[in-house]
Amino acid sequence: MAEIWDQPQALLRLLEHEADFAAVSRALAERSPSAVRLVGHGTSDAAATFGTYAFGLLPGWTALRDTISLTVYYGASFDLSNSAVIALSQSGRTPDVVEYVTRTRKRGALTIALTNEPDSELAAAAEATIPLCAGPERSVAASKTYMNELAALALLAGGAAGRGREIAEGLRTVADRLAGALGPLERAVAAPAVAFAYVGRMYVIGRGLEFATAREIALKLTETCRVAAEPLTATDLAHGPVAALDSLFPVWVIASHDESLPAVIDGVARVREAGATIVASGTAATEIEGAAYRLPVPQPPIPLLSPLLSVVPGQLFAASLARAKGLDPDHPVRLTKVTLAR
Amino acid sequence: MAEIWDQPQALLRLLEHEADFAAVSRALAERSPSAVRLVGHGTSDAAATFGTYAFGLLPGWTALRDTISLTVYYGASFDLSNSAVIALSQSGRTPDVVEYVTRTRKRGALTIALTNEPDSELAAAAEATIPLCAGPERSVAASKTYMNELAALALLAGGAAGRGREIAEGLRTVADRLAGALGPLERAVAAPAVAFAYVGRMYVIGRGLEFATAREIALKLTETCRVAAEPLTATDLAHGPVAALDSLFPVWVIASHDESLPAVIDGVARVREAGATIVASGTAATEIEGAAYRLPVPQPPIPLLSPLLSVVPGQLFAASLARAKGLDPDHPVRLTKVTLAR
Repeated sequence: MAEIWDQPQALLRLLEHEADFAAVSRALAERSPSAVRLVGHGTSDAAATFGTYAFGLLPGWTALRDTISLTVYYGASFDLSNSAVIALSQSGRTPDVVEYVTRTRKRGALTIALTNEPDSELAAAAEATIPLCAGPERSVAASKTYMNELAALALLAGGAAGRGREIAEGLRTVADRLAGALGPLERAVAAPAVAFAYVGRMYVIGRGLEFATAREIALKLTETCRVAAEPLTATDLAHGPVAALDSLFPVWVIASHDESLPAVIDGVARVREAGATIVASGTAATEIEGAAYRLPVPQPPIPLLSPLLSVVPGQLFAASLARAKGLDPDHPVRLTKVTLAR
Repeated sequence: MAEIWDQPQALLRLLEHEADFAAVSRALAERSPSAVRLVGHGTSDAAATFGTYAFGLLPGWTALRDTISLTVYYGASFDLSNSAVIALSQSGRTPDVVEYVTRTRKRGALTIALTNEPDSELAAAAEATIPLCAGPERSVAASKTYMNELAALALLAGGAAGRGREIAEGLRTVADRLAGALGPLERAVAAPAVAFAYVGRMYVIGRGLEFATAREIALKLTETCRVAAEPLTATDLAHGPVAALDSLFPVWVIASHDESLPAVIDGVARVREAGATIVASGTAATEIEGAAYRLPVPQPPIPLLSPLLSVVPGQLFAASLARAKGLDPDHPVRLTKVTLAR
């Protein structure tokens, strides 16, 4: 997962295409869609969660992670003439995502592909494609692809709200702060990674904007470290899953300075009561009482961009934990770089 | 969880209110919403997943599990004049769900509450309330509330499509088949429950309509049996999580006879390759090669109603496994019947 270190550069590469984003944003704004339908699997699906916030908070549009099977397996007959589709796929070859885009385009949706492979089937199927420019990612577990998916969604949503330039500037600042944070964070994750060598299950808690981060960190822990890590909102934790916690079932908490922080702090109180070890990350990591480990990240210049910084401790921790367990973080068992599962 | 056995009766109680559902369905059809926004936590959120299919397949409407925090924490300014909101809460007291309904109603959404408590804050906040009629549920882990939430969503979606009577008839048949299946299923879950006494982590796999079932069964296993059980679609399994499987990490598969079955069968092949024990449930349980345990359920009279039957093996298994582990399935640690977490 050497690509973790390439993320600031990958962000800057994406920003060279600011004009392409502006053009697609204008097409989106002209459509003024009643629904932005986001589709993707794995890491791309975690990025789609961020997309629902980016479109909700910037142009104030309803965005949803659409249910692919309704269109691809059941042939549901939605009116899509007022929809935009944004399909996310590292390889551009995910079969049900390609099929979804083909069908929704035929039925009148404005279809946009975000992929590392501008020559892929997905790019051919969509009306517009913007390359993610993450560059070659040798590791099976994506890191810079996720980073650039978040940035691309923020640019599209920002452009649709007439704030594309501001978001692009914000992303440049993020790239800079990220470059400065990687070294200290790499050193900080070493201690918890050794301590967690025999952990079999974890929850990763985030609320609001940081739920995307919780999903992506949980996925990294599962695929590279073989930990059964489940992402939960702080509120969902209280509606059942808290019952499973004990001192051998640690919880990773993403705490950022925003409106949802009080709900996260409430959730952590329940975790502490259960005797679970707590790892706190995010800009507000130092405000989490009773955390055994704290991995704070720099403030973003714009609150919406917080997830681009807060995912990094999780990426570095997963790589470090995998090595502590004698696993190869770049080549998890049974996974290949291109997933062709239907 | 004696309430599992009361589910056929609970369904019939709900059907006494067919006229109320028809009236609310008419109001929905008049609005012809561009988005049906479903909100709830825990079991109610699993039911909301089913709702996205019921509205997608019957009236062909876009339904989404809305992101509560966008409205409640971030004050996002969606245009809601063409939205319908359906809020699900057993107690009618979930704070952020009540707040969400209050805000979206002020901003022009048609708001509907489905709750067991018609005198609750949620019912007061919503424009229309239909009681779930599940009856007193002493167990903290909901079963008949979930069943009646599914039925209520099917009745509303069916009514909006002019098929309310047909769905109501279908639900009567489901109640009947369910009553006949409970005894044999109760006996069938005993063997895997004993075998799973020391299982710490599981995946629950479902695709399409049965993803709601996967979410609800995983939640029951987590809250009543303290198993870290994560719900996944068969496709998402291949995009990372399959790497964590081994012979001590079993997988529960819900296989039903519908268009998504080939994707489920592909997913199971990956599970088998990893050496994980497989439990197969659903109408197509017998078609799952290499399953150590099979828990087939009766065919529903209408394919959409399949999840009402396929959740039951999971409910009975969770109750049986909790007892095998010396836990009280009705009173999980740290949970209360009414969750007031924000």
